[in-house]
Amino acid sequence: MRTLKPVRTAYPGRNRLGASDARESGETGLRGGLAALDRKDLIRIMPAKGANMDVVVVGGGVAGLSVAWRAAQAGHAVTLADPSPGSGATHAAAGMLAPVSEVSYTEEPLLRLGLASLELWPSFAAELARESGVDVDHRAEGTLDVAFGADDLAALDEMAGFMGGLGLRVERLTGRECRRVEPMLAPAVRGGLLAPGDAWVDPRRVTAALLAALARRGATVVAEHVAGLAVEGGAARGVRLGGGRVIAADRVVLAAGAWSGSLDGVPPGVLPPVRPVKGQIMRLHGAPGFLGHCVRGVVHGSSAYLVPRGDGEIVLGATQEEMGFDTRVTAGGLWELLRDARELVPGVTELEVADVCAGLRPGTPDNLPVLGPAAMEGLLLATGHHRGGVLLAPLTAAMLMAELDGGPGPYAREAEVCSPLRFGGGTARAAFAAHHR
Amino acid sequence: MRTLKPVRTAYPGRNRLGASDARESGETGLRGGLAALDRKDLIRIMPAKGANMDVVVVGGGVAGLSVAWRAAQAGHAVTLADPSPGSGATHAAAGMLAPVSEVSYTEEPLLRLGLASLELWPSFAAELARESGVDVDHRAEGTLDVAFGADDLAALDEMAGFMGGLGLRVERLTGRECRRVEPMLAPAVRGGLLAPGDAWVDPRRVTAALLAALARRGATVVAEHVAGLAVEGGAARGVRLGGGRVIAADRVVLAAGAWSGSLDGVPPGVLPPVRPVKGQIMRLHGAPGFLGHCVRGVVHGSSAYLVPRGDGEIVLGATQEEMGFDTRVTAGGLWELLRDARELVPGVTELEVADVCAGLRPGTPDNLPVLGPAAMEGLLLATGHHRGGVLLAPLTAAMLMAELDGGPGPYAREAEVCSPLRFGGGTARAAFAAHHR
Repeated sequence: MRTLKPVRTAYPGRNRLGASDARESGETGLRGGLAALDRKDLIRIMPAKGANMDVVVVGGGVAGLSVAWRAAQAGHAVTLADPSPGSGATHAAAGMLAPVSEVSYTEEPLLRLGLASLELWPSFAAELARESGVDVDHRAEGTLDVAFGADDLAALDEMAGFMGGLGLRVERLTGRECRRVEPMLAPAVRGGLLAPGDAWVDPRRVTAALLAALARRGATVVAEHVAGLAVEGGAARGVRLGGGRVIAADRVVLAAGAWSGSLDGVPPGVLPPVRPVKGQIMRLHGAPGFLGHCVRGVVHGSSAYLVPRGDGEIVLGATQEEMGFDTRVTAGGLWELLRDARELVPGVTELEVADVCAGLRPGTPDNLPVLGPAAMEGLLLATGHHRGGVLLAPLTAAMLMAELDGGPGPYAREAEVCSPLRFGGGTARAAFAAHHR
Repeated sequence: MRTLKPVRTAYPGRNRLGASDARESGETGLRGGLAALDRKDLIRIMPAKGANMDVVVVGGGVAGLSVAWRAAQAGHAVTLADPSPGSGATHAAAGMLAPVSEVSYTEEPLLRLGLASLELWPSFAAELARESGVDVDHRAEGTLDVAFGADDLAALDEMAGFMGGLGLRVERLTGRECRRVEPMLAPAVRGGLLAPGDAWVDPRRVTAALLAALARRGATVVAEHVAGLAVEGGAARGVRLGGGRVIAADRVVLAAGAWSGSLDGVPPGVLPPVRPVKGQIMRLHGAPGFLGHCVRGVVHGSSAYLVPRGDGEIVLGATQEEMGFDTRVTAGGLWELLRDARELVPGVTELEVADVCAGLRPGTPDNLPVLGPAAMEGLLLATGHHRGGVLLAPLTAAMLMAELDGGPGPYAREAEVCSPLRFGGGTARAAFAAHHR
């Protein structure tokens, strides 16, 4: 489990490169699949204006690792600091890439971000596999959301209408049709909604692949916690490690997940109001073909899911608990996972338990991630992904690359939606700038 | 997890000490608490007639370790063979010493064995602590068996009457009284039966203590599996280890739990018909005082229990599954444990999971252990304890010590009840003797 312990630090700074205002540049917005692919290619062929910058990434979850990888590809000198990369929320993530089946009525902006990143995933995974030699088990076989009672079915129909209105591709299935496509489903399942475009990956393989790719790109991974930000003239100039060593940098990317809300050396209002949202999962040893889709359902009022891996592993997820920085695996958490999974797919009871673990998602007040320049020059944020860290990793990396190059580029709309300044950071920045005038 | 892999073995024997017929000597039977203490003292002060024999114990669970310890105390040269002592059923045992609360209508003989061993436990634990320096957390605070519905209450009343008829001390409590003595109990509990004499120990501490005591007594523990019995002239003369090495012995004590049913070199009918009965448990990190008694209850038709340790740990047990030699921890097993424990003590849901594991109990056709001389000279059995291995360890050791001294001594009745010959071994022995005439 990752942790950033705030420690007082005084650090002699040096000159800065300006970039934090480029954010206000031209807007292009979201233009769907082809545009997404264009953007993805764009990032890779675009000459990195600020190439050969020293970039420090704080946090080795899927977000930080993805940003570090793209930054290293772009020619920056990248150092990533994390006492144990990939051991936080990413380690406890199921890896669903399911923006459609997980859409909420009030969260269309999040849906748009998810769809944009979902479109980036196939090439992201393929390129990552080429560079790392690690297959991340990317599967795009769809999510099946099932219902039991009449109320659930009505909710399913309503959701189907809502999704149709958004132009999302979904198929409404009867109970019999559900069991035909997913024979292990409970007999009590009376209907379902298939989102054929939804996909998933194995987050632990993604971590391993990104670490291998980083090594191959000559990036440095420092297995230490970051004690604080190194600040000079109101600008981020690097980080100070717990061991006392300072890593100087032109840009600091804070991707510390649930720990991104407090970092020594950063004035109030600059860091985002992220909170830890505890999630417990259980991994089971299944058999390949046990399930063909991700299976979701609302059981006892809580949303449960089963994610099948290529090797037959089945992931049961996930609790959502407001427990602060508590990462204990609890009897109640496992009971809830097992109770709900049993109701969806009774056959899971026969499967062997591989492991159980808990992680802390970085939740935000509006459930949207925090991506881009903070109200402090030299500091970029890539956090607040809540339940979407794995899904949003390719988009996060693409948006941060654009910002390293001086502005949001083609991501102006996403940058605005995800701006760190939306939590009153703007005011804070003004106050901070005045203070340092 | 322990395993004995049968491997063909040919072994040159040597002369024998006769003892296998001493079993038919005088009967004294069970005479209650004081007599039990007498017997226990008897064993320790009795001059070991066959002292300085070479004794090999096969199996390092609580039964084998206890026999080995007492044998070493008695002056025998003891070697215990087990690839991983204490890692089998003992590791997955809750450690309840609860002959009263676990009595069944048809199993009075087992009750008598349990009561006799329960009386031996306090001095067994105290002496073990003195020799090993390890406290086994022996607690005699009683078991509370609770009931929810009207049927459960009726069954509880009937059981109370049955126990009273057997002269067992139990107290019938109302739901309110149950919650007074055990505040964490579910509000739905409507009554209970308190068996104040029941006790428990920490089996993992018992294993550690016995290993320390064995070392102190100069016994040898060989961390290898036993490939087969070394036989000459129809008599057991030692064991052959998986590595090929042979350990010669005057007596072989087979205490291999669920693996005691097959051992290379032993003719049909000599080994007992033990079968593996799978049990899964879960250990939780509680707080001292979370529970004051062992709590039992019949939930959804299966008997569930919670055992509190001195350090606050809570053990949830246990499944009983006829699954062959399957030691997988399964989703269904954990779900059953959590479901039942929640109904008895809802507060367990807040506790952290320490570990989960599965073990294989050595079940027998009549649920009674198999203790004493087998239908093969030089071979003694200490197995078939099913769910009672920890409870019956002191009695098992006492009875085996008597047999090493030439006969059942004061345990004639127990020896008859537990005789390995009761499964048609007598016939087998006759045939075997004829074959070797």
